[in-house]
Amino acid sequence: MGVVKSTLPDTALKITGEALQDTLVDLLGLSLIAKQAHWNIVGPRFRSIHLQLDEVVDAARSYADAVAERAAALGVSPDGRPQTIASACALPAPKEGWLQDTAVVELLVDALGTAVGRLREHIAATEQADLVTQELLIDITATLEKQHWMFQAEDAPLRT
Amino acid sequence: MGVVKSTLPDTALKITGEALQDTLVDLLGLSLIAKQAHWNIVGPRFRSIHLQLDEVVDAARSYADAVAERAAALGVSPDGRPQTIASACALPAPKEGWLQDTAVVELLVDALGTAVGRLREHIAATEQADLVTQELLIDITATLEKQHWMFQAEDAPLRT
Amino acid sequence: MGVVKSTLPDTALKITGEALQDTLVDLLGLSLIAKQAHWNIVGPRFRSIHLQLDEVVDAARSYADAVAERAAALGVSPDGRPQTIASACALPAPKEGWLQDTAVVELLVDALGTAVGRLREHIAATEQADLVTQELLIDITATLEKQHWMFQAEDAPLRT
Amino acid sequence: MGVVKSTLPDTALKITGEALQDTLVDLLGLSLIAKQAHWNIVGPRFRSIHLQLDEVVDAARSYADAVAERAAALGVSPDGRPQTIASACALPAPKEGWLQDTAVVELLVDALGTAVGRLREHIAATEQADLVTQELLIDITATLEKQHWMFQAEDAPLRT
Amino acid sequence: MGVVKSTLPDTALKITGEALQDTLVDLLGLSLIAKQAHWNIVGPRFRSIHLQLDEVVDAARSYADAVAERAAALGVSPDGRPQTIASACALPAPKEGWLQDTAVVELLVDALGTAVGRLREHIAATEQADLVTQELLIDITATLEKQHWMFQAEDAPLRT
Amino acid sequence: MGVVKSTLPDTALKITGEALQDTLVDLLGLSLIAKQAHWNIVGPRFRSIHLQLDEVVDAARSYADAVAERAAALGVSPDGRPQTIASACALPAPKEGWLQDTAVVELLVDALGTAVGRLREHIAATEQADLVTQELLIDITATLEKQHWMFQAEDAPLRT
Amino acid sequence: MGVVKSTLPDTALKITGEALQDTLVDLLGLSLIAKQAHWNIVGPRFRSIHLQLDEVVDAARSYADAVAERAAALGVSPDGRPQTIASACALPAPKEGWLQDTAVVELLVDALGTAVGRLREHIAATEQADLVTQELLIDITATLEKQHWMFQAEDAPLRT
Amino acid sequence: MGVVKSTLPDTALKITGEALQDTLVDLLGLSLIAKQAHWNIVGPRFRSIHLQLDEVVDAARSYADAVAERAAALGVSPDGRPQTIASACALPAPKEGWLQDTAVVELLVDALGTAVGRLREHIAATEQADLVTQELLIDITATLEKQHWMFQAEDAPLRT
Amino acid sequence: MGVVKSTLPDTALKITGEALQDTLVDLLGLSLIAKQAHWNIVGPRFRSIHLQLDEVVDAARSYADAVAERAAALGVSPDGRPQTIASACALPAPKEGWLQDTAVVELLVDALGTAVGRLREHIAATEQADLVTQELLIDITATLEKQHWMFQAEDAPLRT
Amino acid sequence: MGVVKSTLPDTALKITGEALQDTLVDLLGLSLIAKQAHWNIVGPRFRSIHLQLDEVVDAARSYADAVAERAAALGVSPDGRPQTIASACALPAPKEGWLQDTAVVELLVDALGTAVGRLREHIAATEQADLVTQELLIDITATLEKQHWMFQAEDAPLRT
Amino acid sequence: MGVVKSTLPDTALKITGEALQDTLVDLLGLSLIAKQAHWNIVGPRFRSIHLQLDEVVDAARSYADAVAERAAALGVSPDGRPQTIASACALPAPKEGWLQDTAVVELLVDALGTAVGRLREHIAATEQADLVTQELLIDITATLEKQHWMFQAEDAPLRT
Amino acid sequence: MGVVKSTLPDTALKITGEALQDTLVDLLGLSLIAKQAHWNIVGPRFRSIHLQLDEVVDAARSYADAVAERAAALGVSPDGRPQTIASACALPAPKEGWLQDTAVVELLVDALGTAVGRLREHIAATEQADLVTQELLIDITATLEKQHWMFQAEDAPLRT
Repeated sequence: MGVVKSTLPDTALKITGEALQDTLVDLLGLSLIAKQAHWNIVGPRFRSIHLQLDEVVDAARSYADAVAERAAALGVSPDGRPQTIASACALPAPKEGWLQDTAVVELLVDALGTAVGRLREHIAATEQADLVTQELLIDITATLEKQHWMFQAEDAPLRT
Repeated sequence: MGVVKSTLPDTALKITGEALQDTLVDLLGLSLIAKQAHWNIVGPRFRSIHLQLDEVVDAARSYADAVAERAAALGVSPDGRPQTIASACALPAPKEGWLQDTAVVELLVDALGTAVGRLREHIAATEQADLVTQELLIDITATLEKQHWMFQAEDAPLRT
Repeated sequence: MGVVKSTLPDTALKITGEALQDTLVDLLGLSLIAKQAHWNIVGPRFRSIHLQLDEVVDAARSYADAVAERAAALGVSPDGRPQTIASACALPAPKEGWLQDTAVVELLVDALGTAVGRLREHIAATEQADLVTQELLIDITATLEKQHWMFQAEDAPLRT
Repeated sequence: MGVVKSTLPDTALKITGEALQDTLVDLLGLSLIAKQAHWNIVGPRFRSIHLQLDEVVDAARSYADAVAERAAALGVSPDGRPQTIASACALPAPKEGWLQDTAVVELLVDALGTAVGRLREHIAATEQADLVTQELLIDITATLEKQHWMFQAEDAPLRT
Repeated sequence: MGVVKSTLPDTALKITGEALQDTLVDLLGLSLIAKQAHWNIVGPRFRSIHLQLDEVVDAARSYADAVAERAAALGVSPDGRPQTIASACALPAPKEGWLQDTAVVELLVDALGTAVGRLREHIAATEQADLVTQELLIDITATLEKQHWMFQAEDAPLRT
Repeated sequence: MGVVKSTLPDTALKITGEALQDTLVDLLGLSLIAKQAHWNIVGPRFRSIHLQLDEVVDAARSYADAVAERAAALGVSPDGRPQTIASACALPAPKEGWLQDTAVVELLVDALGTAVGRLREHIAATEQADLVTQELLIDITATLEKQHWMFQAEDAPLRT
Repeated sequence: MGVVKSTLPDTALKITGEALQDTLVDLLGLSLIAKQAHWNIVGPRFRSIHLQLDEVVDAARSYADAVAERAAALGVSPDGRPQTIASACALPAPKEGWLQDTAVVELLVDALGTAVGRLREHIAATEQADLVTQELLIDITATLEKQHWMFQAEDAPLRT
Repeated sequence: MGVVKSTLPDTALKITGEALQDTLVDLLGLSLIAKQAHWNIVGPRFRSIHLQLDEVVDAARSYADAVAERAAALGVSPDGRPQTIASACALPAPKEGWLQDTAVVELLVDALGTAVGRLREHIAATEQADLVTQELLIDITATLEKQHWMFQAEDAPLRT
Repeated sequence: MGVVKSTLPDTALKITGEALQDTLVDLLGLSLIAKQAHWNIVGPRFRSIHLQLDEVVDAARSYADAVAERAAALGVSPDGRPQTIASACALPAPKEGWLQDTAVVELLVDALGTAVGRLREHIAATEQADLVTQELLIDITATLEKQHWMFQAEDAPLRT
Repeated sequence: MGVVKSTLPDTALKITGEALQDTLVDLLGLSLIAKQAHWNIVGPRFRSIHLQLDEVVDAARSYADAVAERAAALGVSPDGRPQTIASACALPAPKEGWLQDTAVVELLVDALGTAVGRLREHIAATEQADLVTQELLIDITATLEKQHWMFQAEDAPLRT
Repeated sequence: MGVVKSTLPDTALKITGEALQDTLVDLLGLSLIAKQAHWNIVGPRFRSIHLQLDEVVDAARSYADAVAERAAALGVSPDGRPQTIASACALPAPKEGWLQDTAVVELLVDALGTAVGRLREHIAATEQADLVTQELLIDITATLEKQHWMFQAEDAPLRT
Repeated sequence: MGVVKSTLPDTALKITGEALQDTLVDLLGLSLIAKQAHWNIVGPRFRSIHLQLDEVVDAARSYADAVAERAAALGVSPDGRPQTIASACALPAPKEGWLQDTAVVELLVDALGTAVGRLREHIAATEQADLVTQELLIDITATLEKQHWMFQAEDAPLRT
């Protein structure tokens, strides 16, 4: 706390700090889940989904860095240690072993949907607390919702 | 006035124009202050801070351009002339001559803190007046608060 | 509908979907109008305006893609077919044949002004419906207002 | 007319001007059709075809610019306004709403086949009228025939 | 002769060699004329035309190299020495001293028009002699006719 | 198993698969630990170590990808899920909260030393099992030993 | 056949398909011959010719790809398998073992001359059959004739 | 032999030279086979496999160059002439004509498996003869085994 | 003084230090003046001069950095603080508000002329004092005199 | 005169203007002579010298531009028209037709030697007149003397 | 010692440290020798060998850095001071003054042969001591043996 | 001697040749000394100084090349062999083994100070002998004096 002095008042800082910490573990978790699928996917869409998953990984890593540094900028120490991710990440993990391509698409639709749901709650919560943080959460949501659509579009003919 | 027709009503334009003009002089002042420190710093952290200061200069110059062109886009003539900066910039200037590295770190913490304080007031003021301008001010605040943290982090062990 | 599941409730989705569809046809129309002027302009400012028009085209195409993909991300099928643009685009079209440079500048001031007016209505409408979409519309408005100023600045001495 | 002096005699100019104007509206139409499919495609080949469609868009836009500027270079004002594309483009438009990937492949095979057919007529017509324009039409045909093959190759197993 | 063995029969070689040599001196002359105007232009369109002239210079130099190496490839020694350009180049030279911008535009319209006229004769002449050379001449004509249009478009309002 | 057929016999595959899986979790753990320190470091060497830690992160991520894909290439499904890293990574984790720069240097010296110790055991174990995997482990060791030296060199004056 | 539908009538297709297949094997053969010389050349011009041969290889590979894809675009399956090259390539192969630099220059003059001779026959043959294919063959001929000159120029003083 | 003096003793040179010559013809053969499939593939995975095959071609060409130059560096003249590839390459060739995408995947799995099998024999043989050559063969094997996995992963659901 | 030890004797240092300090404030002032004009210019040459002014800004900023670091290299602390620029810069400032394009051209001709006049005095003064500094001043003068010509060339027809 | 106002007094301007005009024609002549040799050279050093000549051409063109714009910057209209080069260039021209490589090397040694001799006279003459111009002439001399050495080094064994 | 803690046991460290130190002085010596030849070479192959020598310099410098940092990584202080190179480098130095191109080729064949001989001894010695260092030495040997071949190939016709 | 003919008279050549030879050995020595420090530095400023030293190395290597080629251009054979550097370089060498960061800073301040002192003598000596060489020495001095300041600035607080 005393190490980096915040530009926000205490109540606003508490709300904002929690929004950022929650988002950080979700994004780090998403980057690990998408990499796991990138390595273990099999099936006729292997190459196509294998490549798309790395776009998810790149976005998740890049936003995790922005979120953690935003927390630090406000004077809140971010926590992205392995144990923290394992216990606090809210996203569904893939099962062990090779993953059929159709199962990967479903996994990503679910994981991205969950992440977006949590982000939209934090966007609402930071409206009064810190517009600067809110804008960052809006940017992340835009990117994850785009990926959410693309994985759903892959999945579409299986649902009709 | 009259030269470039505004897309904003008069009251909103007045608030927004003042927010942009204040921010312009602060950013131009910041770019000059950070360059002054870039040239005059001495001490064991010379190279490390010397390089970081140029990141502040680049950000300040780039945002000053965006702010001034935003004012013009709304029909308000921006004023970034030397005399105007000298009289209107709210940030603390470094003393004459060589500057010890620890003093430079403190100077930047103060200057960035002051600039952020003024920006947060303008963000509040433009909420009703012009969301497009508000978003630009939010972006600038995010960048300056990140630099604010990094200079505080440099300074940390000296405070405990 | 049904194909891509939306992360928005129905009322919010309806408002947001209309804002995005209106903006899509305006941006596609703007890209075609600016290209038409790019090819047909004549006069002593030919080269200068010819080059600036391609900046408008690039921005309009790039934002049209972002807007259409934002609609898809929300589960709304975007419509950018030729007939749709011809019937729904709200911007003024240039007359047939070669265009004097002064007329091109006026045309762009008008077209950009119209587009900005419609965008500002959609920014207000999406405030409650979807902040993620609102931010995209704010970005587009910032870019179009900047072009609006630059074409007005070209035109300035002719008005006084 | 009269504004830009042609280097071609009148008869040759009439034939060449019509070939270029027809090609311009087909290419602009193709760029809009392919973008519409790029946004609305669903199915297991979503990502693969989504990316390929942007190659078609890029080629169509780039050649439309070359064709329009070739017309201008000969003294013929090119017409690429929204209404003109809607009424004069000879290519089949996609239906409203989401598009199954197999339907997109068929649509592109048809649209590209139609465009190539019209281009080959104009190549024959410009043989005597203007070899410079003919060469441009040959280049465009080479590119569209390559895309025509690639969409047919995607489609192949469904036909046997 | 004899040094590099031609892949063309003698009659075809003679026609092709003359077409290439004529084009070489015109292009080298064009590059010098456009540079002279680039340096000596004055007037309110100074910067705009100054930059465009360097595009003409770049194109003329690059095509001169291609033409001379095409001649060598056919076994014909190309001649681009200063005396040869001075005596054989068919394009109009600018007057001594500073050049008003309007005069530069007219000069380029004339020089490019002359060069295109000569190229179209050589395109006709090489139809039977060498299609490979003809294609190169067609490419050059396309580029020069585009510049011809752009300088005419600059000039347009002065003519009506 | 069975999904991807291995080019190695069973015994060799077992040894190699374990070496790769162990290395994978150490590298993923290292990338998270170094990022945690990158965000939480404070002190006069903040900027210098902050930047160096991102070099460690980049190397750890890139090698983790190579190691996981090497396992897949041999027919062994790699496991890099959050829970697996939390339970199987052998490297020391940083404490919660801000970290003094001197403590970060020590943490990295320890973590890199531990990782190198485990890698050297796997290099020995794969000598008979698979030279292709061994070479990859050698490359990783070279890079981590270089970072190990650089963090020790930072630390040197504190030890004498 | 039947798999990819041709845009050419049958007779034209037969002529064009043979021209493309012949050119394909010559270009693939040329790429292998030039690489063989690149590896085995010795003598005082080693480095100079070694580097030039890779320009020949790059051109031959790139055009082989264009030619094969042109055949596919017309609905003709291209054949570039090792046995086909060995039996159908018309160009002279180098002898086994190290090659003196002077012998390499002569070999390339001969191989390029043979390839150009065959290409010029196919250019004539495709004039009526397919102008799009003809243009591709013209481009290839231009490039090979340029290399033909450069190897002859290397050889010149040995012939006089 | 006498042309380039070897740094290896005779026995070691013989073993190493044969390993390199065998690998050279396999890699050149692989590059031709993968290109043949790149041109002739049809089916719903056309674009995805078409692009992946060019990665195989690039790797095979690049390693063939490294292998041939390694042979030359040891004083052994490499032989990559068309006839040699046709007679000595150990990899299975595709059948004539268009190739279904599933058949292409199987072909590549077989060809890469065969190449890897031969490489692993040469890695064992060069352990005593030349560690420098052995390392090159290990690098090639790592790359081909990675491709081997990726084509198997594409194929996976067809096998279960 | 004592902080950085000079390589020049005292008298030479005094002359050189003053030349550098004077040049520093002129260049920083020029960068602010040219930016002010870049934002406030209106008229038919808006885009052309708007872009050219940024070339002046870039040059002025880059040379200001070189000049200040040259002073530091000689042991003289450079002073580029806002108050110093406001009081010591010798160049004419633009009036408040929008600026007609013709007035901007005149302003730049005057400002550049003044700056060059001062630089030529310092070039003479440093001939004996420090050739290293003199060369830097010569470089700056060359660049400013080139800009001086280009703004005069813009202005030319208005003067005759 | 009068059009662009000089920063030099009349006598200095006369000396400087003549030095620049002489250098301009020599550099333009050198660029044409070196290109002529680039196209017409034959012999065993063809490729090596052919490439080096283009370095001379690039340097000559680039410096010609700098010299002409330096003249303009001083208010002196530069003259680089074909007739002026033909009559005023002091460098030896190559003979007509193909040129043996040894003759090209000698030609360049002579041409560069002549150019350097003239430049050294102008360097002496501008010492009092204009140090800014002198520095440009010094830079050109450095580059031409480097080329002079390299062509002499090529020639060396033929002279001993 | 003591400053950087080694990951190797003492005996292995001694062998590895000596191998690295010997290689360091040979590579630094090679970089100086090749530069000396680069500057002093004369003869008809001047340009060709002059350029190739810089490839040797670049490789030698880059590997020297890798070798020295590898020593440091193991806790052994590397010594690359001028006196150490002069006394410990095992490679033959060129004679004073200009060097005929044929003599340069011989010098490089000898120097590279000597360096390779020493490296192969160190590769054998580090097999048990440190596989990580051995791999680095193998990489260096591969590069130097490639250069060794290329200089021998230049020399070949003089030996037969 | 006699091999490359000088453009300078004998006396001037002698002075200039000695200035260049002295500078060459100092710069080569400086590049080796700075690399030695780059590898052996330890202490809390390790990374910061380690990186700065490579900037010194790059500058020293690049200028050494320019100086040696300048000597050759004047007909003087440059001598940069290991023995020559060891015996003629005037700069202080670092002691054997690891180097504390503070000692490295002092070493560089001394080495750069010595080099600058020698350069300033040669600048004075070449004023009459060769202005082209003098300019090169001035450029080198500017760069070394800038480094000299930066290492002094690092050192500053230790001196007060």
